[in-house]
Amino acid sequence: MSDHQDRANKVFKRIEELAATTEEPGTVTRTFGTKAFLQGSAKVAQWMKDAGLQTRIDQIGNVRGKLLCKTPGAKTFVIASHIDTVVKAGKFDGPLGVIMGLDLLEQLVATKTELPFNIELIAFSDEEGVRYHTTFLGSKVVTGAFDRALLDKTDKNGIALKQAINIMGGDDTLLAVDAILPENWLGYYEIHIEQGPVLWENKIPVALVTAIAGQKRVELTYTGFAGHAGTVPMDMRNDALTSTSEFILAAEQFATQNKDYLVATVGKLEVMGSASNVIPGEVVFSLDLRSPDEEKLKKAYTHLKELSESICAKRGITPKWNLVQETLPVACDDDLNAMLKQAIGNSGYELVELVSGAGHDAVPVSEVAPVSMLFVRCYKGISHNPLENAELADIAAAIRVSDNFITQLIQKYQ
Amino acid sequence: MSDHQDRANKVFKRIEELAATTEEPGTVTRTFGTKAFLQGSAKVAQWMKDAGLQTRIDQIGNVRGKLLCKTPGAKTFVIASHIDTVVKAGKFDGPLGVIMGLDLLEQLVATKTELPFNIELIAFSDEEGVRYHTTFLGSKVVTGAFDRALLDKTDKNGIALKQAINIMGGDDTLLAVDAILPENWLGYYEIHIEQGPVLWENKIPVALVTAIAGQKRVELTYTGFAGHAGTVPMDMRNDALTSTSEFILAAEQFATQNKDYLVATVGKLEVMGSASNVIPGEVVFSLDLRSPDEEKLKKAYTHLKELSESICAKRGITPKWNLVQETLPVACDDDLNAMLKQAIGNSGYELVELVSGAGHDAVPVSEVAPVSMLFVRCYKGISHNPLENAELADIAAAIRVSDNFITQLIQKYQ
Repeated sequence: MSDHQDRANKVFKRIEELAATTEEPGTVTRTFGTKAFLQGSAKVAQWMKDAGLQTRIDQIGNVRGKLLCKTPGAKTFVIASHIDTVVKAGKFDGPLGVIMGLDLLEQLVATKTELPFNIELIAFSDEEGVRYHTTFLGSKVVTGAFDRALLDKTDKNGIALKQAINIMGGDDTLLAVDAILPENWLGYYEIHIEQGPVLWENKIPVALVTAIAGQKRVELTYTGFAGHAGTVPMDMRNDALTSTSEFILAAEQFATQNKDYLVATVGKLEVMGSASNVIPGEVVFSLDLRSPDEEKLKKAYTHLKELSESICAKRGITPKWNLVQETLPVACDDDLNAMLKQAIGNSGYELVELVSGAGHDAVPVSEVAPVSMLFVRCYKGISHNPLENAELADIAAAIRVSDNFITQLIQKYQ
Repeated sequence: MSDHQDRANKVFKRIEELAATTEEPGTVTRTFGTKAFLQGSAKVAQWMKDAGLQTRIDQIGNVRGKLLCKTPGAKTFVIASHIDTVVKAGKFDGPLGVIMGLDLLEQLVATKTELPFNIELIAFSDEEGVRYHTTFLGSKVVTGAFDRALLDKTDKNGIALKQAINIMGGDDTLLAVDAILPENWLGYYEIHIEQGPVLWENKIPVALVTAIAGQKRVELTYTGFAGHAGTVPMDMRNDALTSTSEFILAAEQFATQNKDYLVATVGKLEVMGSASNVIPGEVVFSLDLRSPDEEKLKKAYTHLKELSESICAKRGITPKWNLVQETLPVACDDDLNAMLKQAIGNSGYELVELVSGAGHDAVPVSEVAPVSMLFVRCYKGISHNPLENAELADIAAAIRVSDNFITQLIQKYQ
């Protein structure tokens, strides 16, 4: 136990040290390809080297450290998370998984464990997508799914991704070489803070992730008829905002009734040409739907679309419904999860199974390999915020579970 | 009938001519004290002079034309509306009442009618309050209720009202002299477009106004807790927007149940720090309540405040409720309305009694004199918009009714 606490302390100190490498002092801001980002990458690369890993930074800026087995042509198990952050981020979203992975490999090196497969630790360079408004640049290169059309995309300063790669010291013509070929993947493991309140509320340190929710994001426009707030009687109005309110409440009620597999959120809402004495004529708003179950997500989407149409028909409102983004749900691998469940039990913790409502690098990786994830409790579920925190005791618990998981995995393939 | 149509044609042409006097060609924009406003005032003053009225422009810019009776010390009956407009206005809101009043007086002059009281036609200089964000500057000077503290108020260019009055050729130290003393008022009559859809929908040309609604305007803030749209389960949210939606719907439902005396409108709504993947943590919105019945308005206000508190308590939301503006309802005068009803009946039109949900110059005038108003049907109830329109046939109807009303009034005091 004290050993796990010492390791958690070391993990925590490294997270703090990486957090101090930031674009804006006083905050944690380390977006893809910036000077602070490159300093952070160099730091992580040095730690990997010091741990005895075969270390390099690839063309898209991923920091990669290998621990090789002696069998030629052995497959690779990847342990990873990301080291880029949002603007004014917390310290843990991303770095926790990378630095805990580093600790796991240091442990394997220290115990001189013989590996039946290669392990590659990867610090992905872009998961958040802040700079180029496209997520998973790092992991998509590693899975071979990188879309070269993105190279011409520019950031807010007009710098194309291609240029950014060159400035970082990479060569965009060699991106394909950085992929791990599908036949060489053994599996994938990522540790991440929960970014939600379930573990915090239930006072449980870690959770097994069963799936990463699929998402459908819709932009809706309700067009009614603007009017004078004083002169149009209640029964002669086509109020776009009261109509929107009815839909928002109905969507909330439907998602709450089906909360075991669904979340629904209206996060953006704008009343066009708004004034306190004008009946809203047009409202534009977003709807974000997520579920781990593809079929149920599809049904919820259809149900809410019909609900929207019937509310608008009843109220004399013209609706527009525009699906702007969708991702399919990803199920974590049954075999890896069975070992992870065992590891949680072996470590003496209650089993909590969660669906990740947020996207993670495990999503693109799932296209080429079986994936698994462990969530670590975070303070009140707060993330993407300076208040983001994971406690030492919970990090120690995650170390214990992960040690046990990797041990089982090694035994399985020996 | 053809006489009324000819007069309606003349009214319409003058309205068009005044509308062409604008700050911005292609729109109707004539806000208080601007060059276009002064050109418009001069035009109206010339029309009044041509009609044989004793005409002057007072210190606040009201254009005033008197038709005097022969009895010394006789009281004054005021016929008025305003000639300032909102930005990108319609042609009829304000000018219709002024130019129809002019037509009425021209008729009295043409028929050499002996008056038992003075009649003063006034084109108020500021009803909309666009420039100084305070309404009724013109009529408040005439009723003696002008607040001299306003003289230091500045417009968006830093020009104080005092300066604006001087630029217009007025002398702010003489404002009080322009008031008609309370004991000298006989009554007040204003013709105005309805600015609502009731006459349009019911295909009726004019309506009697029974009262001008009182108003309470509230700014509300609902504070919940922001969170990730994907990671916080439905039953662990404190969503400020779904809570706001519940209140908006409840307010709409309550007002609709009481639609004979109440309108309730949420016209402004802002989700603070909004993003499609963030559960709204704070929403700021407006509530506009209007009723002709002071007691019922007060009760509705209290009921909705309690409703807001109970919705927020249930949902873990902290509400702020801030009353930012209120005006009392104004009842039109029973005796004047009896004559106006008679006039509508005599003219062969169905009697429609409406409450004005919008404020009018009749509100400040009601402090010193009995007031009456006639609404004229406008296209689809649209106002404060270039689409604003009143049809010739309806203007002719309003002329017929107004002639009859003034005739009754003269007979009463003869």
